[in-house]
Amino acid sequence: MILQQIGVVRSPYPTKFAVPRQHGLARVRCFIELDPGVVEPTALRGIEEATHLWVIFGFHHVQGREASTVRPPRLGGNRRLGVLATRSPFRPNPLGLSAVRLVAVDGLRLEVESGDFVDGSPVYDLKPYLPWADAIADARVSWAAEAPTRLKVSFSADAERTLREHPRAQPLRALLEETLAWDPRPAYHTAEPDRRYGVAIADVDVQFSVTADEVRVERIVR
Amino acid sequence: MILQQIGVVRSPYPTKFAVPRQHGLARVRCFIELDPGVVEPTALRGIEEATHLWVIFGFHHVQGREASTVRPPRLGGNRRLGVLATRSPFRPNPLGLSAVRLVAVDGLRLEVESGDFVDGSPVYDLKPYLPWADAIADARVSWAAEAPTRLKVSFSADAERTLREHPRAQPLRALLEETLAWDPRPAYHTAEPDRRYGVAIADVDVQFSVTADEVRVERIVR
Repeated sequence: MILQQIGVVRSPYPTKFAVPRQHGLARVRCFIELDPGVVEPTALRGIEEATHLWVIFGFHHVQGREASTVRPPRLGGNRRLGVLATRSPFRPNPLGLSAVRLVAVDGLRLEVESGDFVDGSPVYDLKPYLPWADAIADARVSWAAEAPTRLKVSFSADAERTLREHPRAQPLRALLEETLAWDPRPAYHTAEPDRRYGVAIADVDVQFSVTADEVRVERIVR
Repeated sequence: MILQQIGVVRSPYPTKFAVPRQHGLARVRCFIELDPGVVEPTALRGIEEATHLWVIFGFHHVQGREASTVRPPRLGGNRRLGVLATRSPFRPNPLGLSAVRLVAVDGLRLEVESGDFVDGSPVYDLKPYLPWADAIADARVSWAAEAPTRLKVSFSADAERTLREHPRAQPLRALLEETLAWDPRPAYHTAEPDRRYGVAIADVDVQFSVTADEVRVERIVR
């Protein structure tokens, strides 16, 4: 089956590193821009009657890197599971599935919240979220029974200074807090409070360190 | 993007007509048979730790019949919605999304319950259902706010007789009850108690009629 790309996601994450490890965690705004050469405006008629949408998209940044087993970050990289038993992107068909809150519809451009998209992800399908079919409260996955823990986020004096001088200081602060709270480090890193990590978010590079329950933004570079 | 078929669904529904109009409704068993030429057995390692799975599959029976608007059965066929605002199969990319209960794993063969598959549907991906991310209890779709109503199912004396002579009488009865209770008629049919409908389920043809709250099996032909 040949999938036709029907649009693209615009997100503040230029690389996979900062992307929250599941949809529904970070309250971060993204845009789904549908391709006017492929999608007729009538194909969206009534979509605003759904509060949430499923997005089927491509893990385009990992294409050609399938694996039959993976080490889920949740398990500290200590245990190998079959890729089809996980939500890892390294799948036989690199399709992602993300439920997002629909914030606004403007022609073929949808504003959504709480996805887990790398910027530029190709979109293949949108479907309304039907709670009476899709919300299965008693489902369980024993190795990932609970949502990950949200960490506190603090900023060094140096980071605060750079932030104040940024033209979009307030939204950028909110974006950094909401993203870093979910700990974007590769999970196989053990706690090393002195280690600095770097990640690109929106138009800045962020250097941060992590203690047991806190992410500290050390430096922000534009 | 080219999708590689990783397996096939075996269901008791040879055609689209009898398939429940959403996953999670009919408690009907199906099998997902993964292709040993494509999927290594290790790719399933740990999958039994999930109680439910997402299945991304193809609406192979409608391929090439996309539409930008559709008349959802739920709305009695009276209102056109954009195809991306519905779960209709007539989508730009005919991908289906079904959450199933995982009953048993036997090598590359998974027994599952409550899907909405036509027999022979190609499978492209399986993912564990993560309730803390996937179950969004406060999601709403205004035009499909509630699950459809379950109807009573009764059997004529003639149908009872054929059923008794069937080698798998009990499971067939349960399958017919569970399927017909969700009213497989095209929704734009108004109530015509005298009208008979025919549908193929498993190895029988079923003729039934429908009143306000009951489906009556008139005749079963092997």
